[in-house]
Amino acid sequence: MEGTIVLNGRDLTIEEIAKVARDRVKIEISPDAMKRVEDSRRLVFDLVESNVPIYGFTTGVGWNKDKVVFKDFFQEYNINLILSHCVAAEPEASEEETRAVMLVRLNALLVGATGIQPDIVIMYKDLLNHGIHPVLPERGSVGEADISNCSHIGLAMIGEGEVYYQGEKVGARVALEKEGLEPIVPGPKDGLAIVSSNALAAGEGALILQEVKELLEIADAIYALSLEGLNGNLSPLDPKTHEVRPFPGQAHSAKKVLEYLEGSYLHSPNWKRSVQDPLSFRGSVHIHGSVRDALSYVEEYLKIHINSSDDNPCVILDERRMISCSNFEVTSWVIGFEMLGLALSHMSKTACHRTIKLSSPEFTKLPRFLSPADNVICFGTIQKTFTSLDAEIRHLSNPATADFFSVAGDIEDHASNAPFVVQKTRRIVDNLRYILGIEWMHAAQAVDLRTDINLGKVTKELYNTIRTEIPFYHKDRNLTIDIKKAYIMIKSGLALQTIREAEM
Amino acid sequence: MEGTIVLNGRDLTIEEIAKVARDRVKIEISPDAMKRVEDSRRLVFDLVESNVPIYGFTTGVGWNKDKVVFKDFFQEYNINLILSHCVAAEPEASEEETRAVMLVRLNALLVGATGIQPDIVIMYKDLLNHGIHPVLPERGSVGEADISNCSHIGLAMIGEGEVYYQGEKVGARVALEKEGLEPIVPGPKDGLAIVSSNALAAGEGALILQEVKELLEIADAIYALSLEGLNGNLSPLDPKTHEVRPFPGQAHSAKKVLEYLEGSYLHSPNWKRSVQDPLSFRGSVHIHGSVRDALSYVEEYLKIHINSSDDNPCVILDERRMISCSNFEVTSWVIGFEMLGLALSHMSKTACHRTIKLSSPEFTKLPRFLSPADNVICFGTIQKTFTSLDAEIRHLSNPATADFFSVAGDIEDHASNAPFVVQKTRRIVDNLRYILGIEWMHAAQAVDLRTDINLGKVTKELYNTIRTEIPFYHKDRNLTIDIKKAYIMIKSGLALQTIREAEM
Amino acid sequence: MEGTIVLNGRDLTIEEIAKVARDRVKIEISPDAMKRVEDSRRLVFDLVESNVPIYGFTTGVGWNKDKVVFKDFFQEYNINLILSHCVAAEPEASEEETRAVMLVRLNALLVGATGIQPDIVIMYKDLLNHGIHPVLPERGSVGEADISNCSHIGLAMIGEGEVYYQGEKVGARVALEKEGLEPIVPGPKDGLAIVSSNALAAGEGALILQEVKELLEIADAIYALSLEGLNGNLSPLDPKTHEVRPFPGQAHSAKKVLEYLEGSYLHSPNWKRSVQDPLSFRGSVHIHGSVRDALSYVEEYLKIHINSSDDNPCVILDERRMISCSNFEVTSWVIGFEMLGLALSHMSKTACHRTIKLSSPEFTKLPRFLSPADNVICFGTIQKTFTSLDAEIRHLSNPATADFFSVAGDIEDHASNAPFVVQKTRRIVDNLRYILGIEWMHAAQAVDLRTDINLGKVTKELYNTIRTEIPFYHKDRNLTIDIKKAYIMIKSGLALQTIREAEM
Amino acid sequence: MEGTIVLNGRDLTIEEIAKVARDRVKIEISPDAMKRVEDSRRLVFDLVESNVPIYGFTTGVGWNKDKVVFKDFFQEYNINLILSHCVAAEPEASEEETRAVMLVRLNALLVGATGIQPDIVIMYKDLLNHGIHPVLPERGSVGEADISNCSHIGLAMIGEGEVYYQGEKVGARVALEKEGLEPIVPGPKDGLAIVSSNALAAGEGALILQEVKELLEIADAIYALSLEGLNGNLSPLDPKTHEVRPFPGQAHSAKKVLEYLEGSYLHSPNWKRSVQDPLSFRGSVHIHGSVRDALSYVEEYLKIHINSSDDNPCVILDERRMISCSNFEVTSWVIGFEMLGLALSHMSKTACHRTIKLSSPEFTKLPRFLSPADNVICFGTIQKTFTSLDAEIRHLSNPATADFFSVAGDIEDHASNAPFVVQKTRRIVDNLRYILGIEWMHAAQAVDLRTDINLGKVTKELYNTIRTEIPFYHKDRNLTIDIKKAYIMIKSGLALQTIREAEM
Repeated sequence: MEGTIVLNGRDLTIEEIAKVARDRVKIEISPDAMKRVEDSRRLVFDLVESNVPIYGFTTGVGWNKDKVVFKDFFQEYNINLILSHCVAAEPEASEEETRAVMLVRLNALLVGATGIQPDIVIMYKDLLNHGIHPVLPERGSVGEADISNCSHIGLAMIGEGEVYYQGEKVGARVALEKEGLEPIVPGPKDGLAIVSSNALAAGEGALILQEVKELLEIADAIYALSLEGLNGNLSPLDPKTHEVRPFPGQAHSAKKVLEYLEGSYLHSPNWKRSVQDPLSFRGSVHIHGSVRDALSYVEEYLKIHINSSDDNPCVILDERRMISCSNFEVTSWVIGFEMLGLALSHMSKTACHRTIKLSSPEFTKLPRFLSPADNVICFGTIQKTFTSLDAEIRHLSNPATADFFSVAGDIEDHASNAPFVVQKTRRIVDNLRYILGIEWMHAAQAVDLRTDINLGKVTKELYNTIRTEIPFYHKDRNLTIDIKKAYIMIKSGLALQTIREAEM
Repeated sequence: MEGTIVLNGRDLTIEEIAKVARDRVKIEISPDAMKRVEDSRRLVFDLVESNVPIYGFTTGVGWNKDKVVFKDFFQEYNINLILSHCVAAEPEASEEETRAVMLVRLNALLVGATGIQPDIVIMYKDLLNHGIHPVLPERGSVGEADISNCSHIGLAMIGEGEVYYQGEKVGARVALEKEGLEPIVPGPKDGLAIVSSNALAAGEGALILQEVKELLEIADAIYALSLEGLNGNLSPLDPKTHEVRPFPGQAHSAKKVLEYLEGSYLHSPNWKRSVQDPLSFRGSVHIHGSVRDALSYVEEYLKIHINSSDDNPCVILDERRMISCSNFEVTSWVIGFEMLGLALSHMSKTACHRTIKLSSPEFTKLPRFLSPADNVICFGTIQKTFTSLDAEIRHLSNPATADFFSVAGDIEDHASNAPFVVQKTRRIVDNLRYILGIEWMHAAQAVDLRTDINLGKVTKELYNTIRTEIPFYHKDRNLTIDIKKAYIMIKSGLALQTIREAEM
Repeated sequence: MEGTIVLNGRDLTIEEIAKVARDRVKIEISPDAMKRVEDSRRLVFDLVESNVPIYGFTTGVGWNKDKVVFKDFFQEYNINLILSHCVAAEPEASEEETRAVMLVRLNALLVGATGIQPDIVIMYKDLLNHGIHPVLPERGSVGEADISNCSHIGLAMIGEGEVYYQGEKVGARVALEKEGLEPIVPGPKDGLAIVSSNALAAGEGALILQEVKELLEIADAIYALSLEGLNGNLSPLDPKTHEVRPFPGQAHSAKKVLEYLEGSYLHSPNWKRSVQDPLSFRGSVHIHGSVRDALSYVEEYLKIHINSSDDNPCVILDERRMISCSNFEVTSWVIGFEMLGLALSHMSKTACHRTIKLSSPEFTKLPRFLSPADNVICFGTIQKTFTSLDAEIRHLSNPATADFFSVAGDIEDHASNAPFVVQKTRRIVDNLRYILGIEWMHAAQAVDLRTDINLGKVTKELYNTIRTEIPFYHKDRNLTIDIKKAYIMIKSGLALQTIREAEM
Repeated sequence: MEGTIVLNGRDLTIEEIAKVARDRVKIEISPDAMKRVEDSRRLVFDLVESNVPIYGFTTGVGWNKDKVVFKDFFQEYNINLILSHCVAAEPEASEEETRAVMLVRLNALLVGATGIQPDIVIMYKDLLNHGIHPVLPERGSVGEADISNCSHIGLAMIGEGEVYYQGEKVGARVALEKEGLEPIVPGPKDGLAIVSSNALAAGEGALILQEVKELLEIADAIYALSLEGLNGNLSPLDPKTHEVRPFPGQAHSAKKVLEYLEGSYLHSPNWKRSVQDPLSFRGSVHIHGSVRDALSYVEEYLKIHINSSDDNPCVILDERRMISCSNFEVTSWVIGFEMLGLALSHMSKTACHRTIKLSSPEFTKLPRFLSPADNVICFGTIQKTFTSLDAEIRHLSNPATADFFSVAGDIEDHASNAPFVVQKTRRIVDNLRYILGIEWMHAAQAVDLRTDINLGKVTKELYNTIRTEIPFYHKDRNLTIDIKKAYIMIKSGLALQTIREAEM
């Protein structure tokens, strides 16, 4: 959380993005990266002098690529470009997300393939380090690239539009002045350099990957507690079974769950339990493992993205050329997010079915709906709640990436819908917090209804944590409140903190 | 807007629901309806006395239907039932929506098939007329019925939970007291009567139908203005073509568009225009007509719903019986909402393609992107904005109604997801406001670029209205602001008001 | 089956289409309809003489509408038009379907809004009455209109391509000669008149509606038998409950099911049975009713289509004009098919859950998986079969109607995908035959395991019919064979015939 | 193609599966693998003797796991298990696919974690090497595992059911006798070992991966020819641009396309061409690269699957234990197939848009619809054909993996729908053959309309190949025939062979 992260355009990680975005860790730019930026800026000017027409530099962009931009109008043209590319729609990205977006764009600029003015590079750093966060409406992009949105960062940089600063929404110019920063003066290609980037989707996407990682730890731990609630069989966690079936994700989850259950009564062989639990229990680590497998694909490709250039045209420093290209095509990882959504949909269904089983005497030998007494309804209705949230997840997991049509004079006849795909994944994650929260409520209630059992090293603490906010259900009460509390304990990081501290 | 609406359980309309919900028109209950309520309450007590076991009355509900509820515990049991059925998740319904929900439930009670305590019926009326609106989280129901949510209305009635009152969120008891109302004391079956209703989906659904109706008028009028922007051909509006193809919706839209264009230069034959415009223009009234056709299906079935009973068991007054049934099954109109969403998706695509055409010199003979001058970018990027919003609509139009699984001891093995289906239709409608707003911006700009043309009776006013907020685009500016303004003019009712006043 | 159907362009029904398509009932053309055809042909020639340019007549079609077609080249141009519009892909429509397609096109021509050569109208009749069925590949159309496919009917008419005739695929010319028919000589507008029609989707669609109607009778009857297998409660069928909830479809199904169960032991009150069965049983007629409700929408709009003109331009006889229009837009009923698919998906899920319940001792008090003895596995695995077929239905019920992009120089920027939507509905229906067949197997087995029970008037015969092919399951056997047999008994019409004969 | 493939359960590749399945390459089993099989069989018997209850061995399966199977009934029970698990539905897998299925199952058995009778292992080998292919209906499995289908292989092994043999469908017993093979006599666990496997999905899936690989080569080459048809810009293929954006797939495709274009006129700088082509051209290798990236994920996980055990319970030889587990959970690669389908949907759209561009004078400077003369319609209608096939692909790319519900007494409450997901991917691939075939037709026509151009090393041969079957379009003709020819040239392997031979 402390310290400073040095950016070089080459090795930024998802975790570091989360730190800068959430914890406002300060950043620096490595000197060699800054040199690349300066070199490529110089190259661009050299090329302009030699009268090579350069897309978005001495020409218009998109369908207007046939129009010439004359030197005298570089500043005006680039300001106009920023203004006219402000075509986004609400809602706004959170401040955390805006930070991630700026960070991702900044890191890509350090590759040295953009040809942007070095002062603007420094402005990204300054906005981040000074906590000035442009208002960033997050809809309006088809993902080729996020020009409708990233333009709003440029807007703040030239002192227009609004920003979040010190917890308030103020005019960009006000915030810059308060921090002693000068607005930028965009020169040639700077407009395009600012707007033409997939940073919205990549930045928001990076934060979501971090959230999925954290959710996986929580899901594994709650599953472990549910196993104790069920008096379930541990055999599917046996490391040997994962050796004969070496999918990496399932082995990882199995290992974690066994750790969480260290010391649990489930290791004791003399309990009456089923030879084989329902698939939702028996296959939990396999399904959670599939989320891990999908995640590893997305992370691999998103990390390549974040540490390379999505600019068009791109500057090739060593060959002193600029090349028109399509490097803003991000389909490889956008489809990965779609896959990840499907994996999360499987995880959601598994959590739902585990929770249903915890309410079923046939499987638990505990009272129906985990009711503590005959005249208490307890969890008799709540199955509709998580089922309906799961139906939303099923709906969100429908793909959107290939739904587009030709725009801009039929020149832009491909799209990825990257931001929307990322944003719907974010909603899947959020629904899962509710669903896992409700499972947690059930698992704790089931554990309470058993007596004389030892919980595992981690599951014990997880149980204790939920009981700090949500007491044993002994008589009927408003469960909407409990549902929200459980959700918040997951959303706020409390559940994760409990697990990690107990693990040590 | 003025006057009072008298409810009788038989003829409540979508328009009346909108009036009560939005304009807070007062309601009364017709005496014969109140008599039915009282008679059926009396019948229920008679049946209880005769020791016939009645579901949800002398028995538990759902899987607990095998449990007996004894008379001494009627009040406690019914309060517990309300509490334990509070299992919803945020976001909250708007106050307007909560009003629609209460109104719909109230009207169904007047059918006399519920057996509810008459005082509770009056409480619904009082909450509405006194402007006390229970906080109503709108997720958590699978649509069989909306028990997770409607319970929150019961919560307020017994003086628990929170309500919106005079613009603030306060404790229910506080608001009741301020208005001199006594909390209800639930007796037998009252808990079930309050919670077991599809009123959430039906109430929210009714408001959405009203919004779709209004949106259709706006869409027809903006299309008319776009026709003027394009210098389009009126022949597909010819009434004779709709006589040889008598789909009701398309004829209706064609008639309206011709009205809106009364006096327009488009009627003048001596203009150079295309024999056949692109399908997005030529088929607009056909597509808008399909929305009308779909709407007429949904409205027909939703009106049946709203004016009949979804209670189980239902009281048959004339035969003095109670019958266990499945009248909370609402699939017939839920699939109608799914169809309506698809129709709206078609309408969205048509609006998008019309807007693209307005930017295309090939079709308009106007400058590319409707730019007023050579160095102005104008609408060069905005096509991504509406395309991405359309992609969201395409995604929202995926069905969700049949995604469920067995809950409650496998007894509840069917669901309709009515609330979610309705709520996603609401989001489609909202996105369309942006898309039509952007078309409106284009149509006005195109009209401005033509000189010496007469606009139609209605389109002229529609043009004037947008120009009160959004000036001619003569130099590049932040369009995110214009997009939001156009959206608000549609959302606020201003566009509709303009059209209706001009029509007279 | 007997008799001749007289066409007049005004009142053709779904049932009649089925008769002509399936049973090869002969057709005639009413004299007044033929007169309209002749009059409109004459009008078209008059208009050409007056030098009004007419789309597709004296001009090219689509993007080529700017090209002129001179009179001397009318024949060549129209033959070229037919040839170049043969751009379809396999599979082929069945002969039944091809008949329905030709019939639907013929009937629309009789409206008199086409301007086609009367000899070609007669050729449609002749092909039908002589049993000459052009090979008709059924893919390649986006539904605006089915020009890629209908062209193949024109191909046969000019003596090109292949046809099915007397059970064999032969050259079109050969078949025409054998039946003493002359190939047509296309004149002006004839090419367009032949190809520009939605007859593929409308014809196939009409047959599917007929299949859905028949399937509903079967589904109601099998549900009735399942009720007897379950020893289920009849209360949700009570006509009074449908009076308080007057959705038309559910009342219809409830009435039928009660008829099918006339005389059944279920009417006897002294059996031990549940107060409320699971929703899949309790709500069956409501869900089947939703299919009926959706069907009534589609049928209403498809019938309008079939008895009106989808021609562009259309001839207005009484005003002696031709008008360019968009009457080939069929979104209104295409979205109806999408809705119908969703309704069928609900029906499928309900059948699956009923079948699961029939295997569950908890609900039937019969042996697990309806096994006749302890060492017999019986229906222990078959739940995967119908579940997987239901998953296919869920997938097929995803919409496709709004997935298109601009073609033909951006002029054709709307589409309905009518044929594909119809064809995927056909596959849903076919999968349902398997699923209902498997339910039938279960219901019969359950009935056999009960002794001393009286079946209903119709269910008894339904039981007897399945037992003619599929015996009681007393020891383990290859069920793939039984599944196919049950499917065939439904597909062949045997089940329906049984039901209808028993009903009388 | 010649030679023999030695199986050891560890390193079977997709290419080898294709060779055995398609080219009927013979197989052998490595001695150490056979030893593992024998050792694990012995271990299983030892465990039975020690009276440890073993799932599916001394107990029933699924919900019947609570039933005991006594030793005397091992044979009868296991035959019954095979019979009663025959619960599949048509269509049948092709013989190639059946071979892949058997091969995949055989290889997994060699891991030594099954405990199957060694004679049955040899029977798999014999069926493959003798060309006896059980009739294998391919529907009826939810993917946990493919027990409904794999049972049919067991059926043939015990001499029941039917097989394809020497090109005919004959009784299994007949074929076995002709080849001198004895039916197997199933002992303990053999029934479960035969049926409980995901081999249907994995085997069919492996063949599809091979088809996708081949399709990618074809797509890259046809794109290259289209570039020549367009006179397109090569800059997005520049290796330097892929160095600054190192997604592996796009670099691979770019390299191939440059190879295919060796010697092409496109390398000549003095041609008038656009600075930036439409995204469908500029981003082709990026999109094809995304298919490659998705493919690499699926292949990685499917290969793990194919070379490991999906058995439950699994035998752990080194620890002399059997462990109940969930290793038949295949979600990790099933979601990969869903992602691959999305990637293919993107590739399809790109091919469609490229083809549209080839018909557009604005982009090619060639005649509209590539028409050779003014009165020839040429490719004026065919855009509907590929658009509609693309709409099918869009529909097929909707996910199906998470659509399931609890079966088997709620014990099987998870599923992957692996076979259906794989089978719908197969249909996507098949549709793409049509779409790429039509692009090929356009590219060749465009190239013909240019004169004096040199084609690339590979594109030249690709051009020559299509011209052997489909001549230059000089006057209107039935294009349905051409479409099918182009499809067949791709499907048959001719296109691929042309490319590969030209590459050398």
